[in-house]
Amino acid sequence: MAERISTAIQDTYDEKYSWCYGCGRLNEQGLQIKTRWEGEETVTTYLPRAEHMAIPGFVYGGLIASIIDCHGTASAALALHRKNGFEPGEGPEPPRFVTASLHIDYLKPIPQNVSLTAIGKVEEIHPKKWQVRTEMYAKDTLCAKGEVITAIMPKTFIK
Amino acid sequence: MAERISTAIQDTYDEKYSWCYGCGRLNEQGLQIKTRWEGEETVTTYLPRAEHMAIPGFVYGGLIASIIDCHGTASAALALHRKNGFEPGEGPEPPRFVTASLHIDYLKPIPQNVSLTAIGKVEEIHPKKWQVRTEMYAKDTLCAKGEVITAIMPKTFIK
Repeated sequence: MAERISTAIQDTYDEKYSWCYGCGRLNEQGLQIKTRWEGEETVTTYLPRAEHMAIPGFVYGGLIASIIDCHGTASAALALHRKNGFEPGEGPEPPRFVTASLHIDYLKPIPQNVSLTAIGKVEEIHPKKWQVRTEMYAKDTLCAKGEVITAIMPKTFIK
Repeated sequence: MAERISTAIQDTYDEKYSWCYGCGRLNEQGLQIKTRWEGEETVTTYLPRAEHMAIPGFVYGGLIASIIDCHGTASAALALHRKNGFEPGEGPEPPRFVTASLHIDYLKPIPQNVSLTAIGKVEEIHPKKWQVRTEMYAKDTLCAKGEVITAIMPKTFIK
């Protein structure tokens, strides 16, 4: 992975979009995950909390789903912002996405006390929809695969 | 829905299986969801916390995925325990399941401050695998649909 740490897209969202339990920088109880470009892939890392267990010693699958979900919408935001000519922190407010569907295949039990890395490949599949395919690693072990279909957030969503 | 409240399967798991962030009764930071039979369907209700938002006013999709995930494994446990001749609280320790795959279709934004109800239909699809199809309602509005493929927990999973 690249040594240079690029700006996380979540750190550039407008304040009104920064309360998400999974990735909002203003949600103090939330996960506050951060998603960045590394070359043509998107990367999110997260160290689960002690309470995020399925059974003692193994990480809770709903947490994996949550990370892959937010990683998906953030990856689409990164990709559309880049398509528009901008890297995170440049240009206008970045676009925001909502999840249309989420699919997770759980491949292996995920041990606790290991940092997780989600690596995404983003593809535009429709003028308003993007597909994000994610691989979730615990250290070097592929533990889960995800697919998120995400759509540009309707303007009616924010009052 | 039936007025009689039957025993939640999570309240009958052995202590070693009762730490799940989504449904473990011993996980103080967790969601502690409870899943019960109502006739031939399985039901889980949950009132999201204030911090479980996507944007202010709407519930976080990762929470919906988490509820549907735990509702799925619990529904399969209820169903196999019933197939073995027992209702929750009766007979031997109930079986425990792990999630093989999780699929969610998000149909409508889910408002905050509304109790959610997941209703599941359970089907055995293989000697060790069950499929749980879930509809998630906010009051009477269908907001999401989920499908969980869940497998009997391998004996090697617990040391």
